[in-house]
Amino acid sequence: MSKNKIVALLTDFGLQDVYVGVMKGAIAKINPQLQVIDLTHEIPPQDLIAARFALLNAYRYFPENTVYVAVVDPGVGSDRRGIAIQFPHGWLVGPDNGIFSGILDVSPAIKAVELNNSQYWLIPNPSNTFHGRDIFATVGAYLAQGLSLESLGKTIALESLATLSLTELRVGETSIAGCIQYCDRFGNLVTNIPADLLGGQNWQIEISGQNIPVVKTYSDVAIAKPLALVGSHGYLEIAVNGGNAQQDLQLKVGEIILLLSE
Amino acid sequence: MSKNKIVALLTDFGLQDVYVGVMKGAIAKINPQLQVIDLTHEIPPQDLIAARFALLNAYRYFPENTVYVAVVDPGVGSDRRGIAIQFPHGWLVGPDNGIFSGILDVSPAIKAVELNNSQYWLIPNPSNTFHGRDIFATVGAYLAQGLSLESLGKTIALESLATLSLTELRVGETSIAGCIQYCDRFGNLVTNIPADLLGGQNWQIEISGQNIPVVKTYSDVAIAKPLALVGSHGYLEIAVNGGNAQQDLQLKVGEIILLLSE
Amino acid sequence: MSKNKIVALLTDFGLQDVYVGVMKGAIAKINPQLQVIDLTHEIPPQDLIAARFALLNAYRYFPENTVYVAVVDPGVGSDRRGIAIQFPHGWLVGPDNGIFSGILDVSPAIKAVELNNSQYWLIPNPSNTFHGRDIFATVGAYLAQGLSLESLGKTIALESLATLSLTELRVGETSIAGCIQYCDRFGNLVTNIPADLLGGQNWQIEISGQNIPVVKTYSDVAIAKPLALVGSHGYLEIAVNGGNAQQDLQLKVGEIILLLSE
Repeated sequence: MSKNKIVALLTDFGLQDVYVGVMKGAIAKINPQLQVIDLTHEIPPQDLIAARFALLNAYRYFPENTVYVAVVDPGVGSDRRGIAIQFPHGWLVGPDNGIFSGILDVSPAIKAVELNNSQYWLIPNPSNTFHGRDIFATVGAYLAQGLSLESLGKTIALESLATLSLTELRVGETSIAGCIQYCDRFGNLVTNIPADLLGGQNWQIEISGQNIPVVKTYSDVAIAKPLALVGSHGYLEIAVNGGNAQQDLQLKVGEIILLLSE
Repeated sequence: MSKNKIVALLTDFGLQDVYVGVMKGAIAKINPQLQVIDLTHEIPPQDLIAARFALLNAYRYFPENTVYVAVVDPGVGSDRRGIAIQFPHGWLVGPDNGIFSGILDVSPAIKAVELNNSQYWLIPNPSNTFHGRDIFATVGAYLAQGLSLESLGKTIALESLATLSLTELRVGETSIAGCIQYCDRFGNLVTNIPADLLGGQNWQIEISGQNIPVVKTYSDVAIAKPLALVGSHGYLEIAVNGGNAQQDLQLKVGEIILLLSE
Repeated sequence: MSKNKIVALLTDFGLQDVYVGVMKGAIAKINPQLQVIDLTHEIPPQDLIAARFALLNAYRYFPENTVYVAVVDPGVGSDRRGIAIQFPHGWLVGPDNGIFSGILDVSPAIKAVELNNSQYWLIPNPSNTFHGRDIFATVGAYLAQGLSLESLGKTIALESLATLSLTELRVGETSIAGCIQYCDRFGNLVTNIPADLLGGQNWQIEISGQNIPVVKTYSDVAIAKPLALVGSHGYLEIAVNGGNAQQDLQLKVGEIILLLSE
């Protein structure tokens, strides 16, 4: 049985062009036996908030020691660093722009390096626009084969890693303040309030004078009515029974959500 | 050479979110050597008619003993059963909502179980919204590794399996009545009339007073004219030469199609 | 370690239907161990120009001896030939319609055959509409397993292969004339002028009385201003800083681009 780790890919490249195919070609060039799994390549262009959430929600369902290569990279071509991080469940490879900060908030980094050893890049002079192909894919492939993190470049301070800041949770006895951290394609608004904070209490959300009940299933409210429930992500999310919460409620990622005990 | 079977996936999850990636992660967690092939994840949301047809048309091109995991699941969270079915060419895993009834019409079930042995689920308390990840993906992975169907839960009567009913074929000497069972992305309207019923006769379709000839190739009719021919699916389909039959003819899935011998 | 080659797939089938899944099923039926990598399946329907460019840009990043199966096939069902080509970096399988002419311009064909040995097809009587499944996928799988090119059919003259003609480059001392060969999903207009023709000179592009400077990075011009730079494809491309060049400049594939030395 293979000792290779899985390479999981996430980008905002879409599937229309050959960018993703080319990254897989670059990985296969290093080792055609590596197994590559697509997380998604349809992150909205340059949407680090969506990428952060997608990684956060995906990693816990993957085998230990998976190598996550994530490329949503508005700063490509600037002096933003390329990094690889060891964390308790595997490795993270991509630009240093906070894309991994959702994962690292719940599973902190062990060690990080800047990718400045061009020996493990596809080419010594990478393009200014496609480090996914020229650096990150090949670095991910080498890590998946067992190369040490230290080989890839100089160690950097964990405190220096970029983060994406969302409103932090504030937890009181009868209230929890969080925010919307993601909107899925069904229009469901996922907060950053995890299920285990809810305990046995009855809660409701107050938004613009409207009360939204926290319930168990969609059918606990009438058709076209809003509700909040713990979604498959493990976070409280706001939905509309038979409808689209984002359209109906006009809420955006980042907006503060106040949860009150009844 | 591996004894593992292939796992073929079909869902309506789309590729924008990480749902599909996470199902593959859950499969890899059980066995990273399993080969997973995507049938499609772009079934229109909750469209069981489209899912049924996609499975029907795909399975015959796959290796024997493939495990098909299909998740179009409007009833997730209700008391609809999760099932696994053995059929002559492999195994079927998903919700008991008729999604497999196209395949089973032409290749009947041998044995079926309800998935109530939580030992083979991802987690003992699955989410109310994502059984694709929490139950079906992992069950599919265990079957692909060789686990017996019986291990997965209690045997259920084949007559109790849900079906999706389309108008059944009625075959006369000079007429065949069927219906449209699918519309593809080119607007071609695929009927449920298989090629082998057509014999050597000349046929035409009568729709709203218009006669559509059954021909061999698109170029047998003028540009912008409708035609019917045996498509790559092996069924008679209605098309427009250089056009979009669905838009031009305004026909929907389920509508009855009458084929008359000339 | 496997001796099998990689099969790389490119089509215009999209991912909504099961066409691509079925091609992979047909490949797995021949050999479930073959590794298949998707280049893209979102080539705009029947857009040979886009397919030609996608193949041209992808192949150099893949392992040597990859088998490229490309199916953008407006002439399927007519008498256009199905072909397989050996070229210095692998094999090309698909319709003889010029789809491979971008690759072959820079890496000429060694040998080509017409696919007329039905022994290596999925079925002896292929459908009129889906040679991707019935011929090309299975032929690609056999080649990837090591079958000789000659087994697949009769050798054909390399001069007889169809080509797609774009305006050829004309290179002078102070001017280069080329054309737009592709527009990516960001609206960037990729010319057929390769980076290595630019030397150390300063260049600008003249379009409809407007001068567009050739620069190093997007930020060398103001927001909303057009620029030209060498893109990740290795060709000069025209972009708009923070904008969409195709929409702003209203240029199409095939349009002539004149580059002048300052």
